[in-house]
Amino acid sequence: MTFQQKLDSIISKNNSLLCIGLDPDIKKLPQGRGQYEFNKTIIDTTHDLVCAYKPNSAFYEARGADGISELKMTCDYLHNNYKDIPIILDAKRGDIGSTNEGYAIFAYDYLGVDAITLQPYVGSEALVPFLNKKEKFSFILCRTTNPGAGEFQDLRVAKTPLYQVVAKRASAWGNCGLVVGATYPDELRMVRQLVPNTLFLVPGTGAQGGDLEMSMKNGQMVMGDGLIISTSRSIIFADNPRDEARKFRDAINKLRGTL
Amino acid sequence: MTFQQKLDSIISKNNSLLCIGLDPDIKKLPQGRGQYEFNKTIIDTTHDLVCAYKPNSAFYEARGADGISELKMTCDYLHNNYKDIPIILDAKRGDIGSTNEGYAIFAYDYLGVDAITLQPYVGSEALVPFLNKKEKFSFILCRTTNPGAGEFQDLRVAKTPLYQVVAKRASAWGNCGLVVGATYPDELRMVRQLVPNTLFLVPGTGAQGGDLEMSMKNGQMVMGDGLIISTSRSIIFADNPRDEARKFRDAINKLRGTL
Repeated sequence: MTFQQKLDSIISKNNSLLCIGLDPDIKKLPQGRGQYEFNKTIIDTTHDLVCAYKPNSAFYEARGADGISELKMTCDYLHNNYKDIPIILDAKRGDIGSTNEGYAIFAYDYLGVDAITLQPYVGSEALVPFLNKKEKFSFILCRTTNPGAGEFQDLRVAKTPLYQVVAKRASAWGNCGLVVGATYPDELRMVRQLVPNTLFLVPGTGAQGGDLEMSMKNGQMVMGDGLIISTSRSIIFADNPRDEARKFRDAINKLRGTL
Repeated sequence: MTFQQKLDSIISKNNSLLCIGLDPDIKKLPQGRGQYEFNKTIIDTTHDLVCAYKPNSAFYEARGADGISELKMTCDYLHNNYKDIPIILDAKRGDIGSTNEGYAIFAYDYLGVDAITLQPYVGSEALVPFLNKKEKFSFILCRTTNPGAGEFQDLRVAKTPLYQVVAKRASAWGNCGLVVGATYPDELRMVRQLVPNTLFLVPGTGAQGGDLEMSMKNGQMVMGDGLIISTSRSIIFADNPRDEARKFRDAINKLRGTL
């Protein structure tokens, strides 16, 4: 089964385009609460409302080997209990070819995730250890959510901003989608026009303040959906994560099909 | 003490610009040999011949939490026994601001390394959690060693290739140097001309086939040195790593001052 098939199946089953970022920042966890325990509660209370979970490696690495163990326990828990929900490892990796094999083993063999986020700077030749795994999937950073994203991403290559060049090229690599931040709705629209059939992972609608309606309007495919809306802090640290997730999923669903 | 001061001190003490990459690929390790044990032997036999060690995180992550423990044990061993040798974590990280804090905690608090390699794509605003640590140092990917490096790095921004734009901008950020691969000697020369006073980390002279003489000629500062030559496989998997490291250090030293 391909990533797209697994994703389509859960989107349909849970009627959801919502991806929840499992980012258990230890500074925000209740005292004495482990990252795995925290994630387990989030997963158990939201599993029927999501189309994917997206743990960001940085929050686990901050705790070293113990954090990596908690990340693995989280992935194992998903495999054992909710194996139809895809896991996207947000790792933003990108090394040269032979070294990427180490990262691919971490993501796919050790953690057993379904997809990973990658940096474009090294080019597709270096990313082959990820792109060649046909049963897995990659999301290439196209437009990041941060305020200073444009420093390089807006540089003009023969009048075309770099993030659009990345979008065009990466969409031709095959077996990958794009990360396009909700905090840049105009750029999202431009990228959708450029690559009408490429899957987007769209972060930034939660705590980062990106507008959901604009994101859905500008990011959906004409053929339907074609994007995953990812949010983390605004759900996982809410007083009632399930309520928040349901509200968010329903808000997304109201906007499906409105272009 | 700044990274540059620590580096200058060991360059002078060991009369060396050689950085050894601690990349214990488990596929290549002798049966039953742990990564830390392997590294310890390399370190004990080469510590007086190097100016830095550079573990690449991918080779440890491939083993999950156990690998991260071996990486930490390696860093601790260096702190406890050879604390005047800087450690550069080759991690090629780059996320948005708040998330980079997790990676910075991993590198600086957990592992206690002195420097890290970073991706430029997110821009300096996002890299602040690294750049602001004045007692630490970052190396920004400018020109990577891989054959397909040019896919994005050679894109022209108003006639200037992207890697040169990255060089110019990053050198102005302060508290960081550049990764410039030895497999692209002409590009190395161009970057040195553009940023005469920026420290380079130069990988690719070993197994990847970059020419040492060209790298030294094209990469040194007029004022002297200004670069670290990093090699990994060709030393750590040699029959006699010490002999190989000494030969390499001496070959580099013969080329110091020849521009």
